[in-house]
Amino acid sequence: MLFDSPSSFGRAFRIVTFGESHGSAVGVVMDGVKPGLPFDLQAIQHELDRRRPGQSELVTPRSEADRVRVLSGVYEGRTTGHPIVLAVFNENQRSGDYSAFQEMFRPGHADYTFQRKYGLRDPRGGGRSSGRETLARVAAGAWAKQQLSALGVRIRGFNREIAGIAAQNVDWDFVEANPLRSAEREAYEAQRAAVEQAMATHDSVGGVAEVWIEGLPVGLGDPVFAKLDALLAYACMSIGAVKGVEIGAGFEAARKKGSENNDPLSPEGPLKNDAGGILGGISSGAPVIVRLAVKPTASIAQSQQTIDKTGKPSEIIVKGRHDPCISPRIVPVAEAMCALVVYDLWLTQQGLVDGSVPSAEEWDWSAVERLLDR
Amino acid sequence: MLFDSPSSFGRAFRIVTFGESHGSAVGVVMDGVKPGLPFDLQAIQHELDRRRPGQSELVTPRSEADRVRVLSGVYEGRTTGHPIVLAVFNENQRSGDYSAFQEMFRPGHADYTFQRKYGLRDPRGGGRSSGRETLARVAAGAWAKQQLSALGVRIRGFNREIAGIAAQNVDWDFVEANPLRSAEREAYEAQRAAVEQAMATHDSVGGVAEVWIEGLPVGLGDPVFAKLDALLAYACMSIGAVKGVEIGAGFEAARKKGSENNDPLSPEGPLKNDAGGILGGISSGAPVIVRLAVKPTASIAQSQQTIDKTGKPSEIIVKGRHDPCISPRIVPVAEAMCALVVYDLWLTQQGLVDGSVPSAEEWDWSAVERLLDR
Amino acid sequence: MLFDSPSSFGRAFRIVTFGESHGSAVGVVMDGVKPGLPFDLQAIQHELDRRRPGQSELVTPRSEADRVRVLSGVYEGRTTGHPIVLAVFNENQRSGDYSAFQEMFRPGHADYTFQRKYGLRDPRGGGRSSGRETLARVAAGAWAKQQLSALGVRIRGFNREIAGIAAQNVDWDFVEANPLRSAEREAYEAQRAAVEQAMATHDSVGGVAEVWIEGLPVGLGDPVFAKLDALLAYACMSIGAVKGVEIGAGFEAARKKGSENNDPLSPEGPLKNDAGGILGGISSGAPVIVRLAVKPTASIAQSQQTIDKTGKPSEIIVKGRHDPCISPRIVPVAEAMCALVVYDLWLTQQGLVDGSVPSAEEWDWSAVERLLDR
Amino acid sequence: MLFDSPSSFGRAFRIVTFGESHGSAVGVVMDGVKPGLPFDLQAIQHELDRRRPGQSELVTPRSEADRVRVLSGVYEGRTTGHPIVLAVFNENQRSGDYSAFQEMFRPGHADYTFQRKYGLRDPRGGGRSSGRETLARVAAGAWAKQQLSALGVRIRGFNREIAGIAAQNVDWDFVEANPLRSAEREAYEAQRAAVEQAMATHDSVGGVAEVWIEGLPVGLGDPVFAKLDALLAYACMSIGAVKGVEIGAGFEAARKKGSENNDPLSPEGPLKNDAGGILGGISSGAPVIVRLAVKPTASIAQSQQTIDKTGKPSEIIVKGRHDPCISPRIVPVAEAMCALVVYDLWLTQQGLVDGSVPSAEEWDWSAVERLLDR
Repeated sequence: MLFDSPSSFGRAFRIVTFGESHGSAVGVVMDGVKPGLPFDLQAIQHELDRRRPGQSELVTPRSEADRVRVLSGVYEGRTTGHPIVLAVFNENQRSGDYSAFQEMFRPGHADYTFQRKYGLRDPRGGGRSSGRETLARVAAGAWAKQQLSALGVRIRGFNREIAGIAAQNVDWDFVEANPLRSAEREAYEAQRAAVEQAMATHDSVGGVAEVWIEGLPVGLGDPVFAKLDALLAYACMSIGAVKGVEIGAGFEAARKKGSENNDPLSPEGPLKNDAGGILGGISSGAPVIVRLAVKPTASIAQSQQTIDKTGKPSEIIVKGRHDPCISPRIVPVAEAMCALVVYDLWLTQQGLVDGSVPSAEEWDWSAVERLLDR
Repeated sequence: MLFDSPSSFGRAFRIVTFGESHGSAVGVVMDGVKPGLPFDLQAIQHELDRRRPGQSELVTPRSEADRVRVLSGVYEGRTTGHPIVLAVFNENQRSGDYSAFQEMFRPGHADYTFQRKYGLRDPRGGGRSSGRETLARVAAGAWAKQQLSALGVRIRGFNREIAGIAAQNVDWDFVEANPLRSAEREAYEAQRAAVEQAMATHDSVGGVAEVWIEGLPVGLGDPVFAKLDALLAYACMSIGAVKGVEIGAGFEAARKKGSENNDPLSPEGPLKNDAGGILGGISSGAPVIVRLAVKPTASIAQSQQTIDKTGKPSEIIVKGRHDPCISPRIVPVAEAMCALVVYDLWLTQQGLVDGSVPSAEEWDWSAVERLLDR
Repeated sequence: MLFDSPSSFGRAFRIVTFGESHGSAVGVVMDGVKPGLPFDLQAIQHELDRRRPGQSELVTPRSEADRVRVLSGVYEGRTTGHPIVLAVFNENQRSGDYSAFQEMFRPGHADYTFQRKYGLRDPRGGGRSSGRETLARVAAGAWAKQQLSALGVRIRGFNREIAGIAAQNVDWDFVEANPLRSAEREAYEAQRAAVEQAMATHDSVGGVAEVWIEGLPVGLGDPVFAKLDALLAYACMSIGAVKGVEIGAGFEAARKKGSENNDPLSPEGPLKNDAGGILGGISSGAPVIVRLAVKPTASIAQSQQTIDKTGKPSEIIVKGRHDPCISPRIVPVAEAMCALVVYDLWLTQQGLVDGSVPSAEEWDWSAVERLLDR
Repeated sequence: MLFDSPSSFGRAFRIVTFGESHGSAVGVVMDGVKPGLPFDLQAIQHELDRRRPGQSELVTPRSEADRVRVLSGVYEGRTTGHPIVLAVFNENQRSGDYSAFQEMFRPGHADYTFQRKYGLRDPRGGGRSSGRETLARVAAGAWAKQQLSALGVRIRGFNREIAGIAAQNVDWDFVEANPLRSAEREAYEAQRAAVEQAMATHDSVGGVAEVWIEGLPVGLGDPVFAKLDALLAYACMSIGAVKGVEIGAGFEAARKKGSENNDPLSPEGPLKNDAGGILGGISSGAPVIVRLAVKPTASIAQSQQTIDKTGKPSEIIVKGRHDPCISPRIVPVAEAMCALVVYDLWLTQQGLVDGSVPSAEEWDWSAVERLLDR
């Protein structure tokens, strides 16, 4: 089945996230963890710090520390092979910020649909629709990343576009050194100006995040429904604010000819990577490239036309401490979701195909990687 | 879990597809069918006919009749509530067409990854990677569509773009009357010329398919992982040749400001539908808009650089009866996948939320539908 | 699939239990909870109190209070429709009690298999193999029981046998009034003597627990794998110490003739209930009768032959605060497991069969219930 | 989740059975099959022949050949790694035999519950409730047995009891040489007389089937819900006519003292096997012993009290070609279900625990095996 609970993800490595932005804790149950592995809580905290608010002057100034605690599944510093529960107990909730929205539906938010679906809604911060839920994904993804790293798989992301301004190349050293997680210095200045302008005008801008999965062996993913690209699309589209997902050349492929789009094969490997590392739903050994369309933050401190709970027309100004562009904080979430897909698939394929880990690719993909910057 | 078998799809309404292009049959097991429903095999055959090869001079001239048979689950014209097995027994296989590919990997195909993953590969037509597998999806989707139709939900698609030439409006009467399933007469002539040019030059072109899901009540989909848009992305990205999926404004949303992208709410309903009918992962009652990037057909009768099974450089010309553009035949497959998602979600949500079907939307969305043509 | 994680249970109402006897908390995630329901924590605590140690002089004198806390999923006293996490934080751990077992495998316990499977073992109380894990089941089962009660379904249990001494009739008022949860006063005195004798001789005795599920409509369960009796067998056999499960006449049915075993049907209902309320895997409307064979407590303060971790022969005396007979404390756990099966099936069947709750049985089963005492 | 469809079974090796006794075919989809394995259809046919009617004068004289066909998933004699569909097309249906039951509910059958649950019922042979469905289980189980055999695991069964007459020892050579699959010659004569007497008096008798799983390594099964014994109980209780399942000493354990029931450990292995090869839900390396209570065949050609569809009192004599004792034909079905559990668990555990197959047990279990005969 496609999913076994709206709040769970994965198959051999399964997580359930829990907690509301208003509740006592937000956390995650990680199940399918192998026994006897060293458990590095600091590495998990590090990823949470990459996601948390208040990192720079270009994101929301809310300043949650988001300290993670272990409730079960670890004994004397090692995993027991049983469910690990990680929880962040909530603090710094300014419920007052949300009181104005109790009676009105914020445009671009889940307020209206949530109210209609569940018949009740916690006005303080969106409940389960809150972006705060993603900290649970990042915590679990951090664990998946650690395991994958030991297998030689690296997952990292950046913003290809902010406010419609695109980067051509990726300077990995620069990515984590700038508050927008922009790909390169050249694009960054204009992107920053656009974000600052949005802040000044009480508006917001969107972006296009990109994740690279490198070091993946040939053979992950299946040729029918559970294609690697399909799983990545599910995972990434499940992040709030994401409105589109593409692999490799993506939508541009639709505008090419077959003779342009096919990646020729040579004994040294494919000569380019328009396929984005996936052929027929199966990893080819080339870097997997995933791109996510991130819409502009819905919360803007401008007057917008809306209705209240009774259906009467109204106006709303969504004040509060909001990100002028959410794409920088989406990057670690997108990496986490990709890590959850890949790690789960790794474990699953092992089980299905006689325990044999798909063999590592012998081709020289570094040449292709250089070609990927466009 | 995200899926329970690479060849299965769905939760309350589950399917397993089976069969290879070379084998004795291709078919589908439909499980979770309610008992006592009238079973209309003609309606299923009708959808298969929309997908099958040989429909026009612009698609592959292979002419499989694709007659579907029922092996189980129907008694005296009604469903028994137990697994229905539908099968199309194979005919018209020209294995000779494929003999040349036995030793070489076709660029843009799953040949290389399939061989590496499974250690064996049926050179005749791609085995499970064959587009022929999609007939099983269309058969099951036809059943889902029938059930949804009785619930007031209509699912239909067209091509927004062919060969980079985009339609601005949708003329539904025209869509099924032209061999490209083009959206409108204005774009069609240029699109047809581009397809004919590709045929003449032994090349191929891509397209952008679009599916509308109308009549959906508010409340389908969940706010965390199993978002309606995430499920649609999984379903549509699982179709071979699809390299990107977007919802509503999609990637364009990433280039807008929040003040432009948010859909204002009025007592008569939202004033536009950039969200594509989904807010926070939950259907809003507006038409759901899904767009799929379809790459150009990988099989082209041009010389391409490749390698053979031993890794030696080679050239390949993929002769055979191939579609110059697969997007017209993708449309019914995309409709089927959307139907499978929505019908399954309908059943699932019923079970989870006390059997209550989410109530129909009272707003007047017809005004918004008029706005959707752009 | 038969299960989706070793620590999870259920389908529409799914739980994951977590926590080790030595860790900071033992708890449960309940997923698939309907939104807007009143949440009665006291009713859950009540069931935990029925399971907890220290209830009487005939069970282990360990005296954990087992106070349950809510971490998520409840807002202003009502369920949100999202995962509810319940946790009991651990206290009163006398790790010292277990130090002797660190180097040896206790006969009848999971020590040996756990060590071999996971390569590590927490000697303090059995880790996940600990009976303490069942408090998470009882907490979730208490919620299921509440929901079922509102639907007219009552689930209650007792001990049919203790130490081989069987009760013939059930006096429901007496069951919760005696520390063995014995069925009737006549058997109780002899059973109590046998338990006291076991205590005096540092030995232990077993029992046969029995659960009745009354008020179930016709139609729960399926005719193939997911038979109601198969699900109950899975659920009850998953309780530690249970070595057998039977339905209705159970093993006695194997010794009868067909003419004796078949339950004749009359317009007023079946004339007896040897089938135990299930025909062809589907509930018949009659009380469902489940019986569990509970082995004698493995921990006994007698010298037993065993080996240590290095494989050398040794002797062990398992001192500590153990139950001379675990069957009295198994009863609430068995009720909980039955409740989890039935509630989940209720929700699932609703979803699969068009939201229609199977209609209530019109027959007069009270006459049959009177016949059930034997 | 406990199951993902009423007609499916398993997790890494998943099956869906389909087909009604009256329909065109009965069969099974096997999913999760590894690629590249040789496919031995004869071995599958052999197991089907062990289950089929008409094997001897002591079972039903219906004489279906039950020839199995492969529809997909095998290419040039090897598995492709994709769903294998096996089907037996139906023949020799004497619908006339069932016409009398159309209006009446047969006592002891699923007629009443099936009609109430689904609102319709195929009177010819029970539809999905038919014992004929078990041929699909046996076909899939035959595949699982082949794979397990290559891993050193042997699964075989016999009848411990027929008509209340119990065997003390097992003579494996005798088991398949006698039509009752009786365990030993001593008990067989009396058992046969009881069956013949039942035939003569138009009555039926039950039995207790027993399955041994030998060669299992330590470590299969999990300590919480998905215990090996719980999975076996689910699998075996899902066979029609089974009313109880026990492991090792089973219900007898409930009547023992702890000092008697615990299996002492020695450097040469456990000194007895009352645990039945499972400790804490995990295989110990000792033979796993499962026992099934099989009720007497419900179809008897005696007048029985019943009601018709309108609820009016009636009498019914179930004529036809029925087994006087179904237990001999249950044995291969029980073996198949045990094989499905164990093979699936083997694959699953591999995936979860780092691909490491649990190591083989070094102890000398042959001594224990000799002790098992009682």
